[in-house]
Amino acid sequence: MRTLHLVVSVLFLSTCFAAAQMPSTLTLMPVPAKIQLGAGQLVVDQLFTVALTGAKDARLDTGIPGFLDQLSRQTGMPLNKDSGDSTKATLVIRCENAGRKVQELGEDESYTLEVTAARATLTGPTPLGVLHGLQTLLQLVEPTPAGFAVPVLTIHDEPRFAWRGLLIDVCRHFMPLDVMKRNLDGMAALKLNVLHWHLSDDEGFRVESKKFPKLHEMGSQGQYYTQAEIREFIGYARDRGIRVVPEFEMPGHSRSIVVGYPELASQPGPYPPGRVARDATALDVTQEKTYKFLDKLIGEMAGLFPDSYFHIGGDEVNDKPWNSNPKIQEFIRAHGMKDNRDLQAYFNKSLEKIVSKHGKIMMGWDEVLHPDLPKTVVVQSWRGQESLATAAKEGYRGLLSNGYYLDLMWPAARHYAVDPMSGAAATLTPEEAKRILGGEACMWAEYITPETIDSRVWPRLAAIAERFWSPPDVKDPQSMYLRLDEVSWRLGWLGLTHESNYVPMLHRLAGTEDIRALRVLADAVEPTKDYTRSEVFPQPPVKTVPMNRLSDAARPESAVARRFAELVGTYIESGYKDSAAEAQIRAWCVKWQGNHPTVKPLLERSFLLTEDQPLSEDLATLSATGLQALDAIGKNQSLPEAWRAEQLAVVQRSMQPRANVVVMVAPSIQKLIEAASPQTASHP
Amino acid sequence: MRTLHLVVSVLFLSTCFAAAQMPSTLTLMPVPAKIQLGAGQLVVDQLFTVALTGAKDARLDTGIPGFLDQLSRQTGMPLNKDSGDSTKATLVIRCENAGRKVQELGEDESYTLEVTAARATLTGPTPLGVLHGLQTLLQLVEPTPAGFAVPVLTIHDEPRFAWRGLLIDVCRHFMPLDVMKRNLDGMAALKLNVLHWHLSDDEGFRVESKKFPKLHEMGSQGQYYTQAEIREFIGYARDRGIRVVPEFEMPGHSRSIVVGYPELASQPGPYPPGRVARDATALDVTQEKTYKFLDKLIGEMAGLFPDSYFHIGGDEVNDKPWNSNPKIQEFIRAHGMKDNRDLQAYFNKSLEKIVSKHGKIMMGWDEVLHPDLPKTVVVQSWRGQESLATAAKEGYRGLLSNGYYLDLMWPAARHYAVDPMSGAAATLTPEEAKRILGGEACMWAEYITPETIDSRVWPRLAAIAERFWSPPDVKDPQSMYLRLDEVSWRLGWLGLTHESNYVPMLHRLAGTEDIRALRVLADAVEPTKDYTRSEVFPQPPVKTVPMNRLSDAARPESAVARRFAELVGTYIESGYKDSAAEAQIRAWCVKWQGNHPTVKPLLERSFLLTEDQPLSEDLATLSATGLQALDAIGKNQSLPEAWRAEQLAVVQRSMQPRANVVVMVAPSIQKLIEAASPQTASHP
Repeated sequence: MRTLHLVVSVLFLSTCFAAAQMPSTLTLMPVPAKIQLGAGQLVVDQLFTVALTGAKDARLDTGIPGFLDQLSRQTGMPLNKDSGDSTKATLVIRCENAGRKVQELGEDESYTLEVTAARATLTGPTPLGVLHGLQTLLQLVEPTPAGFAVPVLTIHDEPRFAWRGLLIDVCRHFMPLDVMKRNLDGMAALKLNVLHWHLSDDEGFRVESKKFPKLHEMGSQGQYYTQAEIREFIGYARDRGIRVVPEFEMPGHSRSIVVGYPELASQPGPYPPGRVARDATALDVTQEKTYKFLDKLIGEMAGLFPDSYFHIGGDEVNDKPWNSNPKIQEFIRAHGMKDNRDLQAYFNKSLEKIVSKHGKIMMGWDEVLHPDLPKTVVVQSWRGQESLATAAKEGYRGLLSNGYYLDLMWPAARHYAVDPMSGAAATLTPEEAKRILGGEACMWAEYITPETIDSRVWPRLAAIAERFWSPPDVKDPQSMYLRLDEVSWRLGWLGLTHESNYVPMLHRLAGTEDIRALRVLADAVEPTKDYTRSEVFPQPPVKTVPMNRLSDAARPESAVARRFAELVGTYIESGYKDSAAEAQIRAWCVKWQGNHPTVKPLLERSFLLTEDQPLSEDLATLSATGLQALDAIGKNQSLPEAWRAEQLAVVQRSMQPRANVVVMVAPSIQKLIEAASPQTASHP
Repeated sequence: MRTLHLVVSVLFLSTCFAAAQMPSTLTLMPVPAKIQLGAGQLVVDQLFTVALTGAKDARLDTGIPGFLDQLSRQTGMPLNKDSGDSTKATLVIRCENAGRKVQELGEDESYTLEVTAARATLTGPTPLGVLHGLQTLLQLVEPTPAGFAVPVLTIHDEPRFAWRGLLIDVCRHFMPLDVMKRNLDGMAALKLNVLHWHLSDDEGFRVESKKFPKLHEMGSQGQYYTQAEIREFIGYARDRGIRVVPEFEMPGHSRSIVVGYPELASQPGPYPPGRVARDATALDVTQEKTYKFLDKLIGEMAGLFPDSYFHIGGDEVNDKPWNSNPKIQEFIRAHGMKDNRDLQAYFNKSLEKIVSKHGKIMMGWDEVLHPDLPKTVVVQSWRGQESLATAAKEGYRGLLSNGYYLDLMWPAARHYAVDPMSGAAATLTPEEAKRILGGEACMWAEYITPETIDSRVWPRLAAIAERFWSPPDVKDPQSMYLRLDEVSWRLGWLGLTHESNYVPMLHRLAGTEDIRALRVLADAVEPTKDYTRSEVFPQPPVKTVPMNRLSDAARPESAVARRFAELVGTYIESGYKDSAAEAQIRAWCVKWQGNHPTVKPLLERSFLLTEDQPLSEDLATLSATGLQALDAIGKNQSLPEAWRAEQLAVVQRSMQPRANVVVMVAPSIQKLIEAASPQTASHP
């Protein structure tokens, strides 16, 4: 019976899709390289079993039960965990080779998933491919009229880039290991394969050092990972096909180092412990003892972190501490250097020797680029795409992070449009282009806490993950958003809190159960963008600023504002004829206009919300304006320029950060204003 | 400055409330025994500190940091954990005596909380009182225009009953320790003080036994707690002022015992492992080896569980296995007993000697009541309130559970109306009445999983907790619901998932992101009540039935249906004049009527939802009926009896379980139907 089904379904295999045209019934993310969709489906019920054949690898021994746990969680079906007979199992996995002892950059991550009505077969040349294939399978399981099922199909998949990373900063706000782990689970679900762990910065040194215990004892405010915890965490990452690359910042961003070891600083100190504003600490790189210290420290950390790559930071070295130390300036002159840039290059060259000596390949932010820099160093470009192309031309391998800063609160589509191979990189020769290894999204932690990090990383990171994995022609933002919305709630099964923390945070703000009106407001706003957020700096004995305002609860990208913008776009593109769109626009405007009187008492009652009153007022005003504009458009009237100017002032004000929040429906209202009051030719 | 504030605020202490008239600005639950509300408030900011004076107790060493963690979580403010100077601390705690080594029934649990504008002072004669007072304080912290704050007040509080329990059945569905712990946290927040742990039943023996390892090895399907885990868990409970009373079921409900030890059964067996329908296993209580076994087992468990009370079950002993064993029937005759009831009494008497020998006080369900039963035994009444009064009259101490079965899916108000001292107990003499120790809510686990248990326990348990703690005149259901709604979201800070799991489960049902229409349906239904739920019994190799339907996602008590019922009540009581209520009733009916076409495609697409189509159709029909009724009432028309009969049939059908769900707005629609079509006198 099963054999017959197999034959029949193969005969039906008819539709072959290029990746960019993935069938709309599938919500896979990232889009696989190749999909052939057949007819029929494989039912996934409680008799589901898995059989493993081929090479053995410890990652599959944890990965397959992990897959079954996840399948059980997302379907709500208890499943049998015993491994199945390969002639009868629902899912037969063939892993062709065991993986490397330490996961390496560029290992084959491809897989083939064949689903018939009788069974699924997953083949991978390595355990990494198998792990990715299992994640694809999890995304394919959907409830159908006949039960949970996976469509009959064949997927051949492989990543576009070998380095697909996420940086998490645990210095500005410390992130406990459970927070880190659930984010690793999310990364694995999206086929990301590098966690770049930003472990030291001015605000904290987050690793236990046995050689230099004053690093974590004095430089961490008690918030650090023990070496045992780090080993366990790296194992957790490895089980999910994720490499862990540590970063220790030097010579700048190094205050947490000199708190315990002031003799390494360019200025005498003292450096009292505790969080500080971004200051101008730099190691004294002219003295021998600095290098002795770093040799020992890097030796210790190289033993702790098995990955071949080791990130030394190297960004934003402030001139002040070097300039004001005559001994350092004398060193620069004596060694025939031009300036501090040259001194940093001298440092990097020396550092590279230390890092190499300990068996690692050095990485640094793009400031490390300098003619003296050894070509083995991998350059991470954060200041612009040009530096990535420049580095590739000069022979360096590189990663793109510019355009992928999650802390800037951009919409997913803006990150999605950034391609590591576009811009200056588009002109590279094939050989140069190969040096671009991929990219990394960055989650800097000035304004996030364990409570809010997930909502800042997810779901937007999924769009970036697709950019790194899927073929370059997969770039339609509309398709991306459809799938992003699906991925977002599915990520909740991993324990990620980006969805589940929203309502509790609104309850806290209001201090009450009925938050409906507050939610209408919160849904229509976003945290302010780029580097416009301001925060009162904490005064002792208070150490940290609470992150418990509307700007922390509001999502980086408002789905309501996005859908409202789509409606307005549809309406305008229809030549104002789409009456269904118009009706929906009206309904939203009426709702927002009426919301202010309802939400006002809440805003007045809670000190956490008082600051948001002008935003709510402006949302109501903008909505009234939108309704006026619709009326005028409907009557084919043109509203006067004075009206236009007045309304545009409200739009502009609404997009300025107030209480670190912007009213995100304002740009759509602006379009309606402009449509209702077209400028005359004499006012270009 | 602080002293001055203190004086001023004491002068303002003017309003004194009996507990039943708690000021509506406070949402305390359970309502304290006495509250005096003053003027002003104590600001709770990041400078908040705690100082402990008086007796030392390990529970305060964990309880105070736990309180600070919880305060930090609910406010989103990082707080300093260092203990404060008692002359300057915001909260000064005075614990007058250290507690007993093992928490005992009847220890003083009272506390006094005095809050001035300068500081809070919490005094308790024991650590238990202090722990309760800290929970009260957490409920008092609210955002105000001037920051988080606690109103100036004085609370003297103490429990009405000494035994305030929750039974959790971990046999029908096993509950991992993290699930158990978050429920302990919830219990502590509501001042409950006994976890009754139902650890053995037909379906599983959930404790590691070193003396009889086949109990957990063969009788648990691998799902049991190790002794180390149990010890750790009991410590966790103790830290929260909660006693852990274990229950081992005998002589019935004992299949999991005889799986490994068939020689103890009344019938020869074999008893293959695995879950079974409620069957008729009973221990053979006529043979010496059964008592030898129980002596050893109870000895082992008495050492593991430090509490003085030990529950032996004793309910629902099925006659069949005893009747069909001639040796047992011969024993009954030979010992001059009348029947199986007498045999169980004989068993209980022997068992009580064993339990006492191991230093414990025996407890049993009300079937144990028999003239031969020693008076030391505590009787737990589940079959009715009469047995509780009977037991008290006969000299037994007792607990009420009848009326508090959470698995019956009753509304909170119905549980709330049950009082241990009402009914037959109201006629007890003061001395007899003292024998009623309190009560226990029961969470039987046939139809719950770790995913759904929280939503079945919470928030309804809070109403029962208030019944056990607060003075008897605290019984207004409207006030209770106001506070229940507040408590519900606050419990989310403890990690309880009753709120947060709802939307994910709806996503699973629909398999899609847009669940708005499904939510409208789910909000208006409830799981079927009492013992009407039916489930297909699993066939091997499948072991367990998935609990992933609408009946599992739907809340036991629909807040929407409750509020709709209030609206209809208001409208009718106003003599159909309250036009605001009428408008809201209309709005709901219009929404529900229009929801069916929207939700239909979702219901058709998912096998998990297909069964719910008739419910959605009936919700739409009922809504149309409601609108017709409103129209008729508005026009002062009476609709014909044929119409009435037809509509009432839909109401009746809607309240019958289908897919284990009832349409909970039906009874309110029924009221509208009856109002629009009053029966004539000739049709009584």
